[in-house]
Amino acid sequence: MTAPKKLGQQSVKFSNPPVISAWASIVGPKEGQGPWAKDFDKILADYLYGQSSWEKAENSILQEAVHTAAAKAGFDAGDAELLLAGDLLNQIISANYAARQLNIPFLGLYGACSTMAESLLLAAMLTEAGFFERVVAATCSHHYTAERQYRNPVEQGIQSSLSSQWTATAAGAILVQPGGNGPRITCATVGKVVDMGVTDPANMGAAMAPAAGSTIKAHFEDTQRTTDYYDLVVTGDLGSIGANLASQIFIQQGLMPPPNYSDCGVLLYDGLPDIKSGASGCGCSAAMLCGPLLKKMSRGEINRLLFVATGALMSPTSTFQGESIPGIAHAIAIENV
Amino acid sequence: MTAPKKLGQQSVKFSNPPVISAWASIVGPKEGQGPWAKDFDKILADYLYGQSSWEKAENSILQEAVHTAAAKAGFDAGDAELLLAGDLLNQIISANYAARQLNIPFLGLYGACSTMAESLLLAAMLTEAGFFERVVAATCSHHYTAERQYRNPVEQGIQSSLSSQWTATAAGAILVQPGGNGPRITCATVGKVVDMGVTDPANMGAAMAPAAGSTIKAHFEDTQRTTDYYDLVVTGDLGSIGANLASQIFIQQGLMPPPNYSDCGVLLYDGLPDIKSGASGCGCSAAMLCGPLLKKMSRGEINRLLFVATGALMSPTSTFQGESIPGIAHAIAIENV
Repeated sequence: MTAPKKLGQQSVKFSNPPVISAWASIVGPKEGQGPWAKDFDKILADYLYGQSSWEKAENSILQEAVHTAAAKAGFDAGDAELLLAGDLLNQIISANYAARQLNIPFLGLYGACSTMAESLLLAAMLTEAGFFERVVAATCSHHYTAERQYRNPVEQGIQSSLSSQWTATAAGAILVQPGGNGPRITCATVGKVVDMGVTDPANMGAAMAPAAGSTIKAHFEDTQRTTDYYDLVVTGDLGSIGANLASQIFIQQGLMPPPNYSDCGVLLYDGLPDIKSGASGCGCSAAMLCGPLLKKMSRGEINRLLFVATGALMSPTSTFQGESIPGIAHAIAIENV
Repeated sequence: MTAPKKLGQQSVKFSNPPVISAWASIVGPKEGQGPWAKDFDKILADYLYGQSSWEKAENSILQEAVHTAAAKAGFDAGDAELLLAGDLLNQIISANYAARQLNIPFLGLYGACSTMAESLLLAAMLTEAGFFERVVAATCSHHYTAERQYRNPVEQGIQSSLSSQWTATAAGAILVQPGGNGPRITCATVGKVVDMGVTDPANMGAAMAPAAGSTIKAHFEDTQRTTDYYDLVVTGDLGSIGANLASQIFIQQGLMPPPNYSDCGVLLYDGLPDIKSGASGCGCSAAMLCGPLLKKMSRGEINRLLFVATGALMSPTSTFQGESIPGIAHAIAIENV
């Protein structure tokens, strides 16, 4: 085994690229109306999924995504050696209570909507290092748990702004193993927190776009890959306003031609009416990756994917205290090699 | 380099044990009145520390702990390659805003009061694996930010119960490097979420004690070390009621004789009046480790330490919805070798 290496300022390179051996996604009713319905493992009929609260429903779909991914790889979820997971709720209760039921050694993460990339990045590093052979990276979000925590009582029916995004109801889980069949994680870039002074919590795409730009720039500099290396560079959940802003940032920085760039927040509800700036939430990029994107990779329609999940790191308290909204993005190179 | 190894069900062993090359702790006024005052790097004169809010004060002391630890190792905080940090606040805003100022590639964690052990465990794994050479593990808590988030408006002066713990105002930071001088991290055990059905959020020690028992039992089984191997086994912040319960669990499981067991929540305010069941908060075990405990190790008064930070993984929402309180504990073996 060649020793794994740091690459440039913020990236790591995997000499023995870990394998994404299985994945699963579960989405809510709205997500099931979009163009990717056939690519998800399950579409919920309603938002409670037989539970007594939206929060318990969110925890349930996270558990089920982990069970489904493990089953596809031929073992029980309880046989996984490590669960790396987080969500948007205060004290990441969805991940905590899912970890209690799953009974897997657990490390809780908080990266807001960047969590799918954060968990996958750590899963790949710990797997290549030889500490674990079955690591699960997972995350979730739920429209109504996010609404009542971050915004207004949903019963009030307050009108959302044109720049606002719809928190996806979705969970995604990925199983990372040192070998086997599947696309491989070849390198990754850890993001820095970037804050350009955006203060409108109804325009998180704009707050996160500079972080996506910073991480993607660092990725290409660190890896010395050309900007046309990837078949698709996809950001987490900038939404249409944030993705347009990100495109401008990329062009300014000479990073990539727009044709091979897209955003999970734009893609998830593509073509649906009344979706404002698109989708957001940890589950947005998780479901797009653990559904349509990895399916496209398994069919060879995409062979080189740069997955860049983005997170807005504020809280209602920090906004109330006049703080601007910091963003972060982590990039994961997934390749058929 | 020998490949690092998984040990038993939940533990990892470091063939080239990473070094704790520097550490720093900053505590609040109350913590500075306890028996360990001379072991902290700074004691705050008040709870605002020149900031406009308690939350901003918490973020400031976390930053300063990281700066202080880096300076002790002879470099600027911005030269660190990775920051692993989290805190108790919703969306871990203390860590997020500290990471923005520090400008270090950042992975946010949430493990409630287990965060110092979670961050240190990941720092050790990523360092030994060769990905990074200067990783900072850090966490913090602030009495008044926790009070207003988790409990009642502090101005109401509501009487606390005898089992309640006082959230410490404190930050701790540790620099982990592959070589150099300092105690080494020789192995570690990742905790599972354990829930014995405790539902009283004013008795978190009792909720966390079974998790401490579970992780310590797994640690001794996985490492095949004898229960008298360590000079000190110290849990995170069970407080006096939780630590007594933990002692009973240890004795039942034949794990260790009480003389070499203690708890950071008991130790931090030892001898102070009116402290109910003791201290809690991410900063409690962080300050005890990054102050008195590592100083004792550097003086050779302790040579083998098992640090077991414990976390209660509920939220006000989960409590309101009738959920019991799950606990978690991660164990880190720190040795002068």
